[in-house]
Amino acid sequence: MKKLIAEFIGTFWLVLGGCGSAVLAAGIPEIGIGLVGVALAFGLTVLTGVYALGHISGGHFNPAVSIGLWVGGRFEAKELLPYIISQVLGGIAGAGILYLIVSNQAGFTGYSQAGDFATNFYGVEQYGHTFNMTAALVTEVVMTFMFLIVILGATHKNASPGFAGLAIGLALTLIHLISIPVTNTSVNPARSTAQALFVGTEAIGQLWLFWVAPIVGAILAGLLYKFIAPNK
Amino acid sequence: MKKLIAEFIGTFWLVLGGCGSAVLAAGIPEIGIGLVGVALAFGLTVLTGVYALGHISGGHFNPAVSIGLWVGGRFEAKELLPYIISQVLGGIAGAGILYLIVSNQAGFTGYSQAGDFATNFYGVEQYGHTFNMTAALVTEVVMTFMFLIVILGATHKNASPGFAGLAIGLALTLIHLISIPVTNTSVNPARSTAQALFVGTEAIGQLWLFWVAPIVGAILAGLLYKFIAPNK
Amino acid sequence: MKKLIAEFIGTFWLVLGGCGSAVLAAGIPEIGIGLVGVALAFGLTVLTGVYALGHISGGHFNPAVSIGLWVGGRFEAKELLPYIISQVLGGIAGAGILYLIVSNQAGFTGYSQAGDFATNFYGVEQYGHTFNMTAALVTEVVMTFMFLIVILGATHKNASPGFAGLAIGLALTLIHLISIPVTNTSVNPARSTAQALFVGTEAIGQLWLFWVAPIVGAILAGLLYKFIAPNK
Amino acid sequence: MKKLIAEFIGTFWLVLGGCGSAVLAAGIPEIGIGLVGVALAFGLTVLTGVYALGHISGGHFNPAVSIGLWVGGRFEAKELLPYIISQVLGGIAGAGILYLIVSNQAGFTGYSQAGDFATNFYGVEQYGHTFNMTAALVTEVVMTFMFLIVILGATHKNASPGFAGLAIGLALTLIHLISIPVTNTSVNPARSTAQALFVGTEAIGQLWLFWVAPIVGAILAGLLYKFIAPNK
Repeated sequence: MKKLIAEFIGTFWLVLGGCGSAVLAAGIPEIGIGLVGVALAFGLTVLTGVYALGHISGGHFNPAVSIGLWVGGRFEAKELLPYIISQVLGGIAGAGILYLIVSNQAGFTGYSQAGDFATNFYGVEQYGHTFNMTAALVTEVVMTFMFLIVILGATHKNASPGFAGLAIGLALTLIHLISIPVTNTSVNPARSTAQALFVGTEAIGQLWLFWVAPIVGAILAGLLYKFIAPNK
Repeated sequence: MKKLIAEFIGTFWLVLGGCGSAVLAAGIPEIGIGLVGVALAFGLTVLTGVYALGHISGGHFNPAVSIGLWVGGRFEAKELLPYIISQVLGGIAGAGILYLIVSNQAGFTGYSQAGDFATNFYGVEQYGHTFNMTAALVTEVVMTFMFLIVILGATHKNASPGFAGLAIGLALTLIHLISIPVTNTSVNPARSTAQALFVGTEAIGQLWLFWVAPIVGAILAGLLYKFIAPNK
Repeated sequence: MKKLIAEFIGTFWLVLGGCGSAVLAAGIPEIGIGLVGVALAFGLTVLTGVYALGHISGGHFNPAVSIGLWVGGRFEAKELLPYIISQVLGGIAGAGILYLIVSNQAGFTGYSQAGDFATNFYGVEQYGHTFNMTAALVTEVVMTFMFLIVILGATHKNASPGFAGLAIGLALTLIHLISIPVTNTSVNPARSTAQALFVGTEAIGQLWLFWVAPIVGAILAGLLYKFIAPNK
Repeated sequence: MKKLIAEFIGTFWLVLGGCGSAVLAAGIPEIGIGLVGVALAFGLTVLTGVYALGHISGGHFNPAVSIGLWVGGRFEAKELLPYIISQVLGGIAGAGILYLIVSNQAGFTGYSQAGDFATNFYGVEQYGHTFNMTAALVTEVVMTFMFLIVILGATHKNASPGFAGLAIGLALTLIHLISIPVTNTSVNPARSTAQALFVGTEAIGQLWLFWVAPIVGAILAGLLYKFIAPNK
């Protein structure tokens, strides 16, 4: 139970902090934090969450991470479903608090399009570019693959103890520095689902890709890493 | 006594460095540090302060942190008041030095509005948005709650020793990346009080929120964390 | 074999992540990540790669690094050629995935000039400046020299264990903060080669400098560091 | 002798990297690194230098640091002069390499004013503000004071071993985030001297302040820290 509360809080923080920085602070003229700030924020939610809660639950905060760790032989199958449910619920709570804050401003009118409210997207014009579904699939598979390689590697028994939270958090920052323009970066189905629920049918209709691609990437990484560096 | 000097210096540094970066460097056209730079500066005041002074006083630098640690069972009640007084005085000294620097420039005319001189605010237009008091209350409660979760978690006996300063400092950076546009980010009554004293009645009149909300958030975090991960 | 797979993946990540951030996210108007974001991305590919894969292969991801470590007495001659081949192949795979993503966008027309697709360059106008071949040679020799000083120093037996990945990754960030405007920053022949292959004759014609200068800088650093701090 | 070479290289790197990022990359339109990038670069020169060379020489790279450590009882008087000479010579070499790179570009015409080529300044308009000599003195004294507090604290016997390089480097980043607009940030007489020599009489005429103020700040910190936390 304590593990599930930790996963709930960590995913709450990931969604509120990462998407919150994007929605509240990225686009302010002249001095806004821009995509560098958003990338930093997403990474720091995980970095701080791992140091704060990792010793309780392992600090996954992401269904694709839990699945990749299971494939890689580091996490038990029976814990998979409860973890994923906690992660999705925590994410929804984070998105809900963010919506509460955002809607308490003068002139707020709500959201409706994929990409709004930091939702993930494919095949629509965002940031002056239109990447198609293939670009989105390749990006999400490869980025999640590398995220899991870093996670499996930095938590390996031969890795420097203590540095995993730093490496994993900054890996998520790096992934956002690369791929926000393509899909708003998911690599995390809980984060995608939470935000989409507050935007509606267009964003929800694209959610399948942000479950399928991260999970495929995570499974591939689990298989490969187990081959190049078994943990026992 | 040495602890109180350490808390004084650390809070002095937090206010001078965090608010100083905002006042001196954020708004310079083209190459200014913007809100990313301010968020980084606030976090680095705490990161550097914890590594420099944490082994003397624990490195709180913030009344809400001291209260949250007390509720969480990590800090003694009898030290609470002296710590808070030192923190407020250190913050005022930091704001005073910053005012001395800023006022020694050509054309300086002083401050009068909430939001000026990096003061915290609610219900006024800043950064092109006007968030109401509810948004400010929710933001400050939740941000301080998560700040204390990170502090309680990263200093827990099961956490990686040495990394607490990194995680806690970068948590403050993250909090600023999210919430500067809403309130200029307090999560620290000493910081709010110090700046407000140099701006006057409008800023002082809003100070209550930046004592109440951070303390409420800190207490909730202390109670929750003690439940999910008792320290003994 | 496992070492070579690790070097392949790490160099794949360095090229995909570093050059990918430059190509996809640097130039977006108003909120793009700019050269700060690209510098951070390059550094984080190495930081995350070292913590994830360093315990398998040593985490070189760069022919100049392997050569400098060999000259400095930390790497065996017989491993040099296999490592370099893996690094170049991994880099090409990273550039290929990036090309696949970039070309799956509306209006894509391909690349032809030195500097396009994050290729390295000398003697052409980029970023509003035209640095000549001498500037490029000096920059690449000195930057790679200092990169290897940091690598040899941070992995020395007297250095703080665990911090090498942090110091080395952030050294690459620093090097990019300084020198992107001069050459797009190589210090890594595998990275230069991988990108040039997708741009064509102009970029390939300048490749020699981005093999010669980094290797010269690395050899000088290996000789000097062995003198000031032998590892035994 | 090996210590002096290490101090030479470290100060070379501090000046080349910190001032180099400012001169080469800060002002590029749209995507330049701005003052955030310069602040990060200065800090990373010290962070990387400390992890690479700190186990040889202690990693001062700054006459004010050597003096502050001596006052604080952590460095021997007889080493003071050789260290300072090595630091100044290393700084000059760094500025020289930077001048060589910068002058090998089309249209280069040289420098003549305080503030050019990243020189420190007071009482002249820079970044749209004109701070007077008092502002410059207060800023440089206080910033160096806090830099030494962090150095003395993070290298104290009770501090977390290994984290000193991180805390000290990021303290220099923080100091630049605050004070570049006031003086271009010195806190380091070697850095100020090195750059001024390539700019001429106006910058050289202001050098006295950037020796006096950092040394005063460092001495005050050495005295205070020894009082609040003696190292034995």
